[in-house]
Amino acid sequence: MKPSSSTSEHGGRSSGPREPGTRSLWGTLFTDPDVDDETCDRAWLRAMLDFERALAIVQARAGIVTEEAARMVVTAIDVGHYDPVVLGEGALTSGTPVVPLVRAIGAHVTAEGRAAVHNGATSQDVLDTALSLVAFRALGPILDGLRGVAAECERLARRHRDTLIAGRTLTQHALPTTFGLKCAGWLVAVDEAEAALTRVRTRRLAVQFGGAAGTQAAVRSGVDLTGQLADQLGLVAPLIPWHTNRTRVAELAGALGEASGVLAKIAQDVVLLAQTEVAEVAEADGGTSSAMPHKHNPVRAVLVTACARRVPGLVATVLSSMAQEHERAAGAWHSEWQTVTELLRLVGGAVRGTRELLSRLRVDPERMRRNLDLTGGLLMAENVAVRLADRIGRSEAQELVAEVCRTAVAAGRSLRDALLADLRIGLSEKEIDDALDPAGYTGSAGEFTDRALAAHRGRNRP
Amino acid sequence: MKPSSSTSEHGGRSSGPREPGTRSLWGTLFTDPDVDDETCDRAWLRAMLDFERALAIVQARAGIVTEEAARMVVTAIDVGHYDPVVLGEGALTSGTPVVPLVRAIGAHVTAEGRAAVHNGATSQDVLDTALSLVAFRALGPILDGLRGVAAECERLARRHRDTLIAGRTLTQHALPTTFGLKCAGWLVAVDEAEAALTRVRTRRLAVQFGGAAGTQAAVRSGVDLTGQLADQLGLVAPLIPWHTNRTRVAELAGALGEASGVLAKIAQDVVLLAQTEVAEVAEADGGTSSAMPHKHNPVRAVLVTACARRVPGLVATVLSSMAQEHERAAGAWHSEWQTVTELLRLVGGAVRGTRELLSRLRVDPERMRRNLDLTGGLLMAENVAVRLADRIGRSEAQELVAEVCRTAVAAGRSLRDALLADLRIGLSEKEIDDALDPAGYTGSAGEFTDRALAAHRGRNRP
Amino acid sequence: MKPSSSTSEHGGRSSGPREPGTRSLWGTLFTDPDVDDETCDRAWLRAMLDFERALAIVQARAGIVTEEAARMVVTAIDVGHYDPVVLGEGALTSGTPVVPLVRAIGAHVTAEGRAAVHNGATSQDVLDTALSLVAFRALGPILDGLRGVAAECERLARRHRDTLIAGRTLTQHALPTTFGLKCAGWLVAVDEAEAALTRVRTRRLAVQFGGAAGTQAAVRSGVDLTGQLADQLGLVAPLIPWHTNRTRVAELAGALGEASGVLAKIAQDVVLLAQTEVAEVAEADGGTSSAMPHKHNPVRAVLVTACARRVPGLVATVLSSMAQEHERAAGAWHSEWQTVTELLRLVGGAVRGTRELLSRLRVDPERMRRNLDLTGGLLMAENVAVRLADRIGRSEAQELVAEVCRTAVAAGRSLRDALLADLRIGLSEKEIDDALDPAGYTGSAGEFTDRALAAHRGRNRP
Amino acid sequence: MKPSSSTSEHGGRSSGPREPGTRSLWGTLFTDPDVDDETCDRAWLRAMLDFERALAIVQARAGIVTEEAARMVVTAIDVGHYDPVVLGEGALTSGTPVVPLVRAIGAHVTAEGRAAVHNGATSQDVLDTALSLVAFRALGPILDGLRGVAAECERLARRHRDTLIAGRTLTQHALPTTFGLKCAGWLVAVDEAEAALTRVRTRRLAVQFGGAAGTQAAVRSGVDLTGQLADQLGLVAPLIPWHTNRTRVAELAGALGEASGVLAKIAQDVVLLAQTEVAEVAEADGGTSSAMPHKHNPVRAVLVTACARRVPGLVATVLSSMAQEHERAAGAWHSEWQTVTELLRLVGGAVRGTRELLSRLRVDPERMRRNLDLTGGLLMAENVAVRLADRIGRSEAQELVAEVCRTAVAAGRSLRDALLADLRIGLSEKEIDDALDPAGYTGSAGEFTDRALAAHRGRNRP
Repeated sequence: MKPSSSTSEHGGRSSGPREPGTRSLWGTLFTDPDVDDETCDRAWLRAMLDFERALAIVQARAGIVTEEAARMVVTAIDVGHYDPVVLGEGALTSGTPVVPLVRAIGAHVTAEGRAAVHNGATSQDVLDTALSLVAFRALGPILDGLRGVAAECERLARRHRDTLIAGRTLTQHALPTTFGLKCAGWLVAVDEAEAALTRVRTRRLAVQFGGAAGTQAAVRSGVDLTGQLADQLGLVAPLIPWHTNRTRVAELAGALGEASGVLAKIAQDVVLLAQTEVAEVAEADGGTSSAMPHKHNPVRAVLVTACARRVPGLVATVLSSMAQEHERAAGAWHSEWQTVTELLRLVGGAVRGTRELLSRLRVDPERMRRNLDLTGGLLMAENVAVRLADRIGRSEAQELVAEVCRTAVAAGRSLRDALLADLRIGLSEKEIDDALDPAGYTGSAGEFTDRALAAHRGRNRP
Repeated sequence: MKPSSSTSEHGGRSSGPREPGTRSLWGTLFTDPDVDDETCDRAWLRAMLDFERALAIVQARAGIVTEEAARMVVTAIDVGHYDPVVLGEGALTSGTPVVPLVRAIGAHVTAEGRAAVHNGATSQDVLDTALSLVAFRALGPILDGLRGVAAECERLARRHRDTLIAGRTLTQHALPTTFGLKCAGWLVAVDEAEAALTRVRTRRLAVQFGGAAGTQAAVRSGVDLTGQLADQLGLVAPLIPWHTNRTRVAELAGALGEASGVLAKIAQDVVLLAQTEVAEVAEADGGTSSAMPHKHNPVRAVLVTACARRVPGLVATVLSSMAQEHERAAGAWHSEWQTVTELLRLVGGAVRGTRELLSRLRVDPERMRRNLDLTGGLLMAENVAVRLADRIGRSEAQELVAEVCRTAVAAGRSLRDALLADLRIGLSEKEIDDALDPAGYTGSAGEFTDRALAAHRGRNRP
Repeated sequence: MKPSSSTSEHGGRSSGPREPGTRSLWGTLFTDPDVDDETCDRAWLRAMLDFERALAIVQARAGIVTEEAARMVVTAIDVGHYDPVVLGEGALTSGTPVVPLVRAIGAHVTAEGRAAVHNGATSQDVLDTALSLVAFRALGPILDGLRGVAAECERLARRHRDTLIAGRTLTQHALPTTFGLKCAGWLVAVDEAEAALTRVRTRRLAVQFGGAAGTQAAVRSGVDLTGQLADQLGLVAPLIPWHTNRTRVAELAGALGEASGVLAKIAQDVVLLAQTEVAEVAEADGGTSSAMPHKHNPVRAVLVTACARRVPGLVATVLSSMAQEHERAAGAWHSEWQTVTELLRLVGGAVRGTRELLSRLRVDPERMRRNLDLTGGLLMAENVAVRLADRIGRSEAQELVAEVCRTAVAAGRSLRDALLADLRIGLSEKEIDDALDPAGYTGSAGEFTDRALAAHRGRNRP
Repeated sequence: MKPSSSTSEHGGRSSGPREPGTRSLWGTLFTDPDVDDETCDRAWLRAMLDFERALAIVQARAGIVTEEAARMVVTAIDVGHYDPVVLGEGALTSGTPVVPLVRAIGAHVTAEGRAAVHNGATSQDVLDTALSLVAFRALGPILDGLRGVAAECERLARRHRDTLIAGRTLTQHALPTTFGLKCAGWLVAVDEAEAALTRVRTRRLAVQFGGAAGTQAAVRSGVDLTGQLADQLGLVAPLIPWHTNRTRVAELAGALGEASGVLAKIAQDVVLLAQTEVAEVAEADGGTSSAMPHKHNPVRAVLVTACARRVPGLVATVLSSMAQEHERAAGAWHSEWQTVTELLRLVGGAVRGTRELLSRLRVDPERMRRNLDLTGGLLMAENVAVRLADRIGRSEAQELVAEVCRTAVAAGRSLRDALLADLRIGLSEKEIDDALDPAGYTGSAGEFTDRALAAHRGRNRP
């Protein structure tokens, strides 16, 4: 049989046109529509059919089944022929939708064709390969989205390279920093998460083909069927069948968990910066409230947070299901299907939300600058101490400044006034004003931002 | 306005006939259809509408809105009028489906009617009450199912009160016990889980009504609106609004986690007993395999296990989302909706599977008896030691028997032969045979079984 | 043998004086010292010994062992005699510390005494009872602490019943409420968590006694040994042995998870209120920073958060270990010991931290009042709309006010000025000022606070 | 100041000799002693001191502090000088042990020396670097152990390359395979987990140095202090400070979770194979039971399972703590210390247990062969069908064989007899015996085993 003329590509040729997934109330709210399309019932069905089709093709090439039989199978493989719900019902007696699917495909071909259906394969071959395909395809829009998030971080980091903002630790103003460095920190994290997911996608998502006990007993031939299936489907060819070795699934889940955490951090910062009392950023089209017309809720940040909060428990489910019995697990394997689906969907939702969030983020540099003054200069105490240290030693300088800070707080006046009033300080008014200028104490913020931007550009160069 | 003539009942009158939920591939496999119907998109929509309708009714009674306006609202409330997916899309800008839902209801009434729509309520009032209603209703079939599981356990415990089986600890034969006591252990656990869930259902699932900041500021009246809403909807009336006090949701999740673990234990035991090498039980219509026509897979036990494995991670998600900010959380709350939905669905699936599993369980008492002999009597060593102890002291008896056991194992012969051959034993052949009879060493197994059965009957008596 | 003259009490007489636990770096930071003492190695050892002692006593009473033998055992049972680390090493070959412990006890008595050591018991009887005892005892200081937290909430709710504060939803000012109601919400949650934990402690923590296969085969007698053990140790007597029915452990974990979530919510609110930009509360002796002498970190709130974040994963571990095999689990059971220990320790740490936090909380009502003005009156928009509604209808009023709000925001002026300037409003200056006064729009905040306080007093009345 | 003459190595020179960790009851049971030594209180203290020492050294080199001051600091840095518990108590007011530690170091030097203590650093710099160091060092014995596990798998796979065993799916005999392939599957998984952990260890465990707000504001100099710290300590130099970018910790946790799952799978298989009814393997010095002298419990497999079951919840804790606020988290960061410590300890315990387990595993090839006959040849049905297929077509052959299987089961006779008796089969007795010989139907098991062995050798070649 003549192989498909198109060169195989990663994630492979699929069994027909992509139709939109089944939208739902919560799915619309917590998932990206493109990811929805690649993870819905029909996407799973498509992936299972892709396996069965590829199997017929490579076995025809190897002379294991006839070209005619394989042709019949390829023709019978059309997502529209099969109903996921019927397969789900059929699965109740066999534990997977593969038995009813194979039976249904068989009903579309002659007896000769049936010889080429699912030949030498086991249910787990189909479902594990489908899991890899679904993940591979869903990671398409997810990774695109992550790169979009990175681009937004890059844009913000560059634009706000020198925008002063309070550095906050344990919720307290600590020292000045820049909004650019904050965004650069996001950027580095997003790039790392993207790298981890890309690595899993291209090096770990593998085809599965082992037959009933993982020995390929029913299809011995001189041909490397596994390698051919991998080529055909655009997936990795594994060293040996991996039915009960779930490292691949665990690494996928882990990388999704990492991405989710990175996005949650961005959303968390936005939520905090958008508080009424802080008001340094806002979502341009902030959410409306049913009862309070004046509110500008950070709705996207909230939805990203909602998605991300649900991810770690799902990762734990995947990890705790790695102890799969013998040659096929009695339940642990079955628990992966919806769990991985949900992981992809939630990370998809978080990616979409974060990208939208950042692309429409209203940044208020003036407010950032104004907030820096909230502590009456106390934020700059360390810098004053650093400048005094040359003269009176570091420890003494720190102690003296701390004392002046306490005096200022107790008296309810600014650090500037307190410093001017304390004769032990011995700095001129000009020196004090310099020491209290936040712009003069951002350390390597600019350089760090540049470094993150350069690294980001570097990794995106061909 | 004249209130609904039917007395309110727990879980309340719903906004129209129940139509089946949207079946899906995985949903069909991992959820009970009745639970699906109570947790699907339309079930959530129905529950939200039920809140809005009840709100109009009780406010009309209290004279806060006009009877005419309330009547319009009640008429406009029809699940068929609203599309969950459209609400999901509308939710993207406000964070919840309530804003678009309220707008949509408003579009079905006149300006006068609009005064009675969602009056004084906030989105979280609607969604928290809907969560309680969805849980209350889904717990209907779940609790029915759990009681069905208990009935099967009871039947098996009674029938097999004296059926001998090896007691197995750390996978090793330990001492004889009865299959009846094993089932009685399941029964006690199921009864405990049922009690915990029932308690949450009747005492903790509450209506929510606090308005934008939880103060009911917009609807002050002398009337206890919360209590009336609770009556109307068949839910608990809380002491005060509980927007960011999530103990109720946590207890629901915890009780679902407990039920899940109890069912997982039953399924685990069945999986182990159904192994080819053990073969003491089988699912009457065991799963068929695509490649191995002779296999009888414990498919239902496998599916129960698959459901149950996914529950603990979801419970952790609920618990870790209890730290909800101020008067409304920025994401933690939003993460509950699908999580609780999925918890209900998975426990529903596990309940259905366990009930079917037990109702069709083929028990093989002969094989159980035969397996008891696998250790050549070593299983009865403790009893021999007990009988010897009177004569030579407990420690000495234990050491002597242990030595004879080692001799028997080393020589590859039965404990009986080894005991007969050892002159130090000093028991007659008859005494040895008595000591080695498993039926004579099941301790209080029968009594314990009776006690569990009696307690079960006791709790089901009115 | 004469029984212990002291009447048994819940949690029972222990095997010697309580010595302090082994303090550690992280233990000191994340655990309450009293809980540490009840959960450390020696506390476990004490609890195991308590079981063995009680067993000897009740079996002597029942005539199963001699009084003299039991007396020897009681004498040999002294925590100081045994080294937890040696038991740990001995456990490596048997899987539990019970085998080496029993051997070690046996070495302290004569052969006659050995007949009364561990007679008819299995390792799990000892460890499950020890788990119940450790939990029972650690829950002592935990529940005391929770009641202390409740007392602090009560004090704050009463004192600040009418202290105005911004109600914040999704981080945005929504409507005014009172700090008293916020504290009342904490109080209700703490009371609920305390009730749940108390229920588990008094009704679910049970003695375990079943022997090797859960049948009590080795100690048949007419006497209810289980009930007597329960009396002796101050624990619940179970219906039947519960070796692989883990509902009790699951409910303990669930209630600890609930308590943890409740405390996390309080800590979260404090963290947010203590932010530099909000500054409505502060820890009186706020943490010092190594680099910034002026900061006042909400250290206790941070530590409570750190404890609470670690709890949900541990609860999931307990739940996912409920599927215990046959008559004794091969690992799932063993995973409970440190997990439950850690749960108790972390909740202990969170309780201590929250109590200290609240007892030293500096509340700044003036700042709360000032922050209410941050939105230039927009916070009061709903109230203006409510007042207008009588005149022009609810929808129209809401739309008009929303428009005025937008105008005010766009022009950068206060809502008051915008309302005065808009001729369509038609309210007098006095009416506008009334409508904009937050004190006039706290709804039922005061009444809700009173209700929570009354309920709290009610449950603490004998 | 003269730098340390020894070239820096990964994980770096430590601040003094390694003394054994504080052993404990549970620690002895669930942790490897070498991992215990690298994760105990003193290991953390050592790692914190290593940071402070390296900081003084590199700042002296850069001329930021004097050589004399740095020398004083280096001298003062001795684990024996500081008490972890005292640091823990000091941490209660600052939230970390760094403030009291810095104060304590300062007490060991003169005022001049104090200028070189902790200069320009923040608490998180110390603790994050310490986390990296603790993980780096603990991963030493963990990775050694994993390689030891792989060596055992390799040995077993080679020795049992052709040892027949039943392939089991969903607990049912499916087709024959080899014990060698089972071990080869373990080997591949262990190699993958080892690679993932090694990658994290060498590429991701980084030094932290950013100062109070992550800008290094207090130590601007032309020198790359971060790079020098990294060299000094044998850790990775990060692109920019990563205070609230927790990808590194997440990847560490993920890789530990993967390793844990791989080991859990091995232990699970051993537990199942060691069952009384299966008895194909045993732990050579199987655990003794307190009540049943004849049992041979798979104790190590049980303990590995116990460790591994606790890991996924901890990974979830790490992932859910990635959303760290602003420039320093208020609790999420603090929750990592014990969680990562416990992850390392549990994986250490699982590694040790698995290695011991495999090194002493008694394999019983005869019993494996005998168990293959338990289904009376039904296990070989697929092979009979394959052989028939050439003659009568695949579908027909499958159906015919399935029918004969059913007949055999119903009649209680062997498949061989049933095949001989069925005239439609048309195979000679010799052909039937050939078809029923498991050795003739192991497919590519041998080749797959060879492939895994070759890949393992390949990766261990320099």
